[in-house]
Amino acid sequence: MSRYWSEFVHHLEPYVPGEQPKMARLVKLNTNENPYPPSDKVLKAIAGATDEALRLYPDPDASALKQAIADFHGVQASQVFVGNGSDEVLAHLFMGFFRQPQPLLFPDITYSFYKVYCGLYDIDYRTVPLREDFSLALADFDSHNGGIIFPNPNAPTGRLLPLADIEALLQRNTESLVVVDEAYVDFGGESAIALVNRYPNLLVVQTLSKSRSLAGLRIGFAVGQAPLIDGLERIKNSFNSYPLDRLAIAAGVASFEDHAAFEESRQRIIASRDALTAALTERGFRVLPSAANFIFASHPRHAGDALAAALREHGVIVRHFGKPARIAPYLRITIGTEEQNAALLAALDQTL
Amino acid sequence: MSRYWSEFVHHLEPYVPGEQPKMARLVKLNTNENPYPPSDKVLKAIAGATDEALRLYPDPDASALKQAIADFHGVQASQVFVGNGSDEVLAHLFMGFFRQPQPLLFPDITYSFYKVYCGLYDIDYRTVPLREDFSLALADFDSHNGGIIFPNPNAPTGRLLPLADIEALLQRNTESLVVVDEAYVDFGGESAIALVNRYPNLLVVQTLSKSRSLAGLRIGFAVGQAPLIDGLERIKNSFNSYPLDRLAIAAGVASFEDHAAFEESRQRIIASRDALTAALTERGFRVLPSAANFIFASHPRHAGDALAAALREHGVIVRHFGKPARIAPYLRITIGTEEQNAALLAALDQTL
Repeated sequence: MSRYWSEFVHHLEPYVPGEQPKMARLVKLNTNENPYPPSDKVLKAIAGATDEALRLYPDPDASALKQAIADFHGVQASQVFVGNGSDEVLAHLFMGFFRQPQPLLFPDITYSFYKVYCGLYDIDYRTVPLREDFSLALADFDSHNGGIIFPNPNAPTGRLLPLADIEALLQRNTESLVVVDEAYVDFGGESAIALVNRYPNLLVVQTLSKSRSLAGLRIGFAVGQAPLIDGLERIKNSFNSYPLDRLAIAAGVASFEDHAAFEESRQRIIASRDALTAALTERGFRVLPSAANFIFASHPRHAGDALAAALREHGVIVRHFGKPARIAPYLRITIGTEEQNAALLAALDQTL
Repeated sequence: MSRYWSEFVHHLEPYVPGEQPKMARLVKLNTNENPYPPSDKVLKAIAGATDEALRLYPDPDASALKQAIADFHGVQASQVFVGNGSDEVLAHLFMGFFRQPQPLLFPDITYSFYKVYCGLYDIDYRTVPLREDFSLALADFDSHNGGIIFPNPNAPTGRLLPLADIEALLQRNTESLVVVDEAYVDFGGESAIALVNRYPNLLVVQTLSKSRSLAGLRIGFAVGQAPLIDGLERIKNSFNSYPLDRLAIAAGVASFEDHAAFEESRQRIIASRDALTAALTERGFRVLPSAANFIFASHPRHAGDALAAALREHGVIVRHFGKPARIAPYLRITIGTEEQNAALLAALDQTL
């Protein structure tokens, strides 16, 4: 605390990211990273950019990366915004779009950073409860609002909405912005980017941290119609001209050009997820249907916090959220390599 | 423009960074980059970190980098905040400290991003005119205020304040935060970091973009007493958990460990600046005394915009600010290599 802080700083409740333990040899299934390395072409692109040009500022517009993303997703580069991880993209869009007279709507159980952004930017919000089965029912979002945001698949549940539900929402909700946060969509969902040219109030956010194995490089992006992208650029250019460094831009371009590595890694994770879901179900877990690179699972005879602690004793770290009470019985388990998933099951077999 | 923007976005006036031309073979003296490459040890550290660990998030606290900065500057790691370039550090501190009932004070001719941050965060400010000779007189900052910020050396003038003047200000001005923006201090100034342990309302901002040749990697930092750093961490952790990527952290640590490369590059630039100042003075220019890696110079018989355009014809890019009128006659010229400076002089000799 300091008398020199702006008043609102005293009331902030910052986001708490999952632990990044400094010990080696842990089976780290707590922050939804990809268990497989980035593609060789990405590592080569970084090596190629590691030279004296690092003395120069990056392209403030990151146009090569915007073009690579546009080409991959079949949109124009003017429809792409890039930022320092999807968290920075989300921060800018909360500030740029969600400071409205009506409250922002998002699910009661969802990415916990949304509330933090509302605190940072003094945004009024209302949470919409998930259904009993943890499904997100967009029909429940029908009310006057200053914007709607939800992840698809949702986090930390992993549950997926079909694109038809999102389109139905866009047809009903034309007066405010709808943001679909697709951090995990590559593991089984269909991207709403397919809809952006038809709906001027749709913005889709993605990241290279999960399906492209680049959490360590901080690259996220948003796709929407140009006027929405312009709004984000105005915020970004009033905040930091160059949020993406030269190495991140080079790596991002290479990642979007290597279709084969992307397909291989995500298919392998999807297959592992299905195998792990079956193995956990066999052990008595309730596992929510997941379209993400993690599963959300509870056991009828073991409390969530106790299970997480027991797994940690065996060198396996998963994520447990104590709040809200409805999800306290659950563990959020990132899909690891086949070996890591086997280690998780072995640790559970010694615990249950 | 879009009806989905938050109202204030319509009124933003974003910062315009210096051009990053995509043509090769230009003599680029427009954005104050270091003409010498980053140290070999930095490039090796990046190569060493370019591996499968990029699939993992960085340390959200960047503690290795904070420790390296703390060791170099003789402070505690808890007194160091790091961000994605000093622009991100500045953005967070404007939001976290300068939203106050009284106006923020800064010089009328200074880093033009300060006004932009005030627009972004709705901060009331008042500018304090530089003296006739473009010197910054801290005595003129004596008034009720919600904070004070100035670069030392100032930009784009390059003029330096002695540390004694800053200390005198801190002794008078105890009720609000004083931020010294030292982007260019390594080229001839004395850092106010020496004062942070005595003044709880002093925060010093630096960057690795200039003296450490790492503009392409986006690393900036602030040093102050722990309660100020805590305030910045609260903002940062409500905005983006991981603003510095793994490669930037590795490069930053290596840079602070390589004292020899740092000394060599900055001494060489200081020597070049003095030689270039003499050569321009010989050609009739008025050159302000500079302690930065750039000079601010005007010619009695040539308008600033015309000179900048003529230099561009010869493949030499410098920066010209049309506003305010007082600085319109001036060019801001980054100190290049000896060869680049010679090319600039040759181009001038064909122009004047």
